[in-house]
Amino acid sequence: MTAGAAQQHRANGSLRHLLTLEGLPRSDIERLLERAQGFVRALGTKPPISSALEGVTVANLFTEPSTRTRVSFELAAKRLGADVVNLEVQLSSRVKGESMLDTVFTLQSLHVDVMVIRDPEAGVPELVAANVAPHVSVLSAGEAHVSHPTQGLLDALTVRQQKKQFDRLSIAIVGDIRHSRVARSAFHVFRTLGVQDLRIVAPEPLMPGAGEFAGCSRHKTLESGVEGVDVVMMLRIQKERMGQVDLPDADRYFAMYGLTPERLKLARPDAIVMHPQPMNRGIEIASDVADGKQSVIRDQVRNGVAVRMAVLADVVGSRG
Amino acid sequence: MTAGAAQQHRANGSLRHLLTLEGLPRSDIERLLERAQGFVRALGTKPPISSALEGVTVANLFTEPSTRTRVSFELAAKRLGADVVNLEVQLSSRVKGESMLDTVFTLQSLHVDVMVIRDPEAGVPELVAANVAPHVSVLSAGEAHVSHPTQGLLDALTVRQQKKQFDRLSIAIVGDIRHSRVARSAFHVFRTLGVQDLRIVAPEPLMPGAGEFAGCSRHKTLESGVEGVDVVMMLRIQKERMGQVDLPDADRYFAMYGLTPERLKLARPDAIVMHPQPMNRGIEIASDVADGKQSVIRDQVRNGVAVRMAVLADVVGSRG
Amino acid sequence: MTAGAAQQHRANGSLRHLLTLEGLPRSDIERLLERAQGFVRALGTKPPISSALEGVTVANLFTEPSTRTRVSFELAAKRLGADVVNLEVQLSSRVKGESMLDTVFTLQSLHVDVMVIRDPEAGVPELVAANVAPHVSVLSAGEAHVSHPTQGLLDALTVRQQKKQFDRLSIAIVGDIRHSRVARSAFHVFRTLGVQDLRIVAPEPLMPGAGEFAGCSRHKTLESGVEGVDVVMMLRIQKERMGQVDLPDADRYFAMYGLTPERLKLARPDAIVMHPQPMNRGIEIASDVADGKQSVIRDQVRNGVAVRMAVLADVVGSRG
Repeated sequence: MTAGAAQQHRANGSLRHLLTLEGLPRSDIERLLERAQGFVRALGTKPPISSALEGVTVANLFTEPSTRTRVSFELAAKRLGADVVNLEVQLSSRVKGESMLDTVFTLQSLHVDVMVIRDPEAGVPELVAANVAPHVSVLSAGEAHVSHPTQGLLDALTVRQQKKQFDRLSIAIVGDIRHSRVARSAFHVFRTLGVQDLRIVAPEPLMPGAGEFAGCSRHKTLESGVEGVDVVMMLRIQKERMGQVDLPDADRYFAMYGLTPERLKLARPDAIVMHPQPMNRGIEIASDVADGKQSVIRDQVRNGVAVRMAVLADVVGSRG
Repeated sequence: MTAGAAQQHRANGSLRHLLTLEGLPRSDIERLLERAQGFVRALGTKPPISSALEGVTVANLFTEPSTRTRVSFELAAKRLGADVVNLEVQLSSRVKGESMLDTVFTLQSLHVDVMVIRDPEAGVPELVAANVAPHVSVLSAGEAHVSHPTQGLLDALTVRQQKKQFDRLSIAIVGDIRHSRVARSAFHVFRTLGVQDLRIVAPEPLMPGAGEFAGCSRHKTLESGVEGVDVVMMLRIQKERMGQVDLPDADRYFAMYGLTPERLKLARPDAIVMHPQPMNRGIEIASDVADGKQSVIRDQVRNGVAVRMAVLADVVGSRG
Repeated sequence: MTAGAAQQHRANGSLRHLLTLEGLPRSDIERLLERAQGFVRALGTKPPISSALEGVTVANLFTEPSTRTRVSFELAAKRLGADVVNLEVQLSSRVKGESMLDTVFTLQSLHVDVMVIRDPEAGVPELVAANVAPHVSVLSAGEAHVSHPTQGLLDALTVRQQKKQFDRLSIAIVGDIRHSRVARSAFHVFRTLGVQDLRIVAPEPLMPGAGEFAGCSRHKTLESGVEGVDVVMMLRIQKERMGQVDLPDADRYFAMYGLTPERLKLARPDAIVMHPQPMNRGIEIASDVADGKQSVIRDQVRNGVAVRMAVLADVVGSRG
């Protein structure tokens, strides 16, 4: 278990921080998914409104830009009645840890109760969680290539809505596994929920090291990777990597690893297609697939705000 | 009628989107002005507060910066009780339409009910309106050189407050007509409201093409343009254009087209002076005029938030 | 008395603006500290919530970035029930005063009641205060090197919590006095509250001109400056200045003027250490001191939001 996992709970066993899904007990995950499902509403109906976080202050502290994820956390907090402040800060790298902690102590002294932190370097959410006062909760909104726990939960919730149970599923995660926090959080949550056939699909330079993704089968071709699966989970590829370090350029990447309607036919007929967004249409995924009947990509977004409401309500509600 | 105009109404005739004033029926315009007038308060008194938009989420999605317009929409939505989120996004140009739609679908899945969109390229608000779910409304907050409908409405409201009726008015629009969405929306709203004597005043390079501004008289000199008018509507000139493409530099522009107290005397004694802001004082308008007794520029700002409240309440309230 | 001080009160004597602590009567300061103390809560308990500013709109208009101060004002206003909008504007320098006033008039016309202004040039808050409508209040959130009144009040509140009375205290302000608005506001508030032994400590190039800080003793060495004092108030040093204009580099600065545990021993055993943040640890202050038992730096932050709530409630509540 990582340092992050070890420090997520209070002494009484309740969830205090959400930093990683690695090592998070199945009971926690299932409770959060259940609570999140209770916050899901059909498109076009009113979102759930609650006063569970009235008098609570949530700060979104982002050191890398991510409008979508910030807005999702912001709306989740507002719909629970919290006060929300957004901070986009640039920290000089030389004194980054110190500056981050001083910023965090400032927020804490301003009576911020929950800090939602997104940072491109590994270890920052854990560092913050290890230093804040006992009543403060830290939620990771994306940590380097390491962890994106609310994304993992929303992915699990999306699968659960479509497939009911996990253990007999086949799930393929496709793309830049090596650099992906989305892939790692998906791996952890699906493993804990009992998925047996979990596959990672990538060209060699984007495969993770041998010590990671234990128990996953590894596929160099998309065709073998998606054959017969229930879920195809596409990842965003950084266009900057295309054509570099032994990688094909964008056109050749699409020719080899792009999810097209033809390739999707290799999966089960009722397979669902997921993507964390933003998408590079025509590079990792064809528009016909992204917008097609098997796509649940917009459900993922809707589930994201529900999951964030559930996590916020859970960590605040259980602090006693 | 443009594509934008055709798609603004629901099947039952109620207003769903506000993308352009071109082709918007006079009955809609008059209803919106009437509702807006109900939200106008004197300076120094409390703004109107309503719970008409409680449980409704409004997103300001701006791809070009405009602090004033964003704040005006933000306050309008908040004073109606809505939750508001602000997004300033940069979209890479190659895949702009796609990226915009994916962002919009994300917002829609986050239960955003109204999207306020400002974009420097023509066609984006229409594109979004054509693609969102039936319960979502799209309001243009400025589209390229094409349209700025809430500005047009606040201009009309300002004139109405001062002049009561429209058909016997003479109105001069002065400045960079060619590149101005403000001028185009003013043209449409004043035409629909029955203004007979509508004039555009500009140096040749800033005149619009012959097919536009049908029925307006065209004036190359400010003197002939403002003679005897009831309303002088100044436009902001982009300083970057000064001295280029056959245009005089800033000093010469002011000498030729700047609205000075002397030139204003050519208009009717009770003529009013308008400007959409921000002003280039000393270039298109003299400070004495901008701050003078005939100026209603601050009324325009106050009316802007009232108009935006009216439009928000109208499109949300009529969705059934 | 400065122009700023002369214009801070209404005709009936109530406080309308807060631009500077220079010349602010002791009765005002003590009332604000008393009100602020009423808004102070222990860390980990809920912040005070009030509806004193319901229907009131507060705008944070910052032309230089300051996330901390903006968030402190934002939370203060929200916890009083106000609507808050944030504007970070860049104004072109050539027409800065004009642009600022046009922006301010826009906000005023949008029914903004309180403008919180931060600007790197001297005179801007006064300029704004001199031009807004009678019902509008202006609060300085930092003006050039001149004034930072809410910082001065929170510093005074922090000292008051620890030391009860002011007149027999010895207080040392250490660092870049010359360029510091924090030092100037501290000087004014401590003088008015009756502090007799007020010292400024700096290398020669960072000492203020002879006409300023009247009555303060001047110390070139940290050792003599902090000897026997009750309060050590450290200032942030701009790293850009290090090694320039006869200043030592960062390492030598720390060797000469850094507050270390050893040097702190020269002060009274119950001396407190303050810093306005953000800190340059290892340059003006050792981490052991910043995080040590005598540090009240986090109290300052907590007191900051209480002071801002007090000031907001005071200027709005007394406008009749």
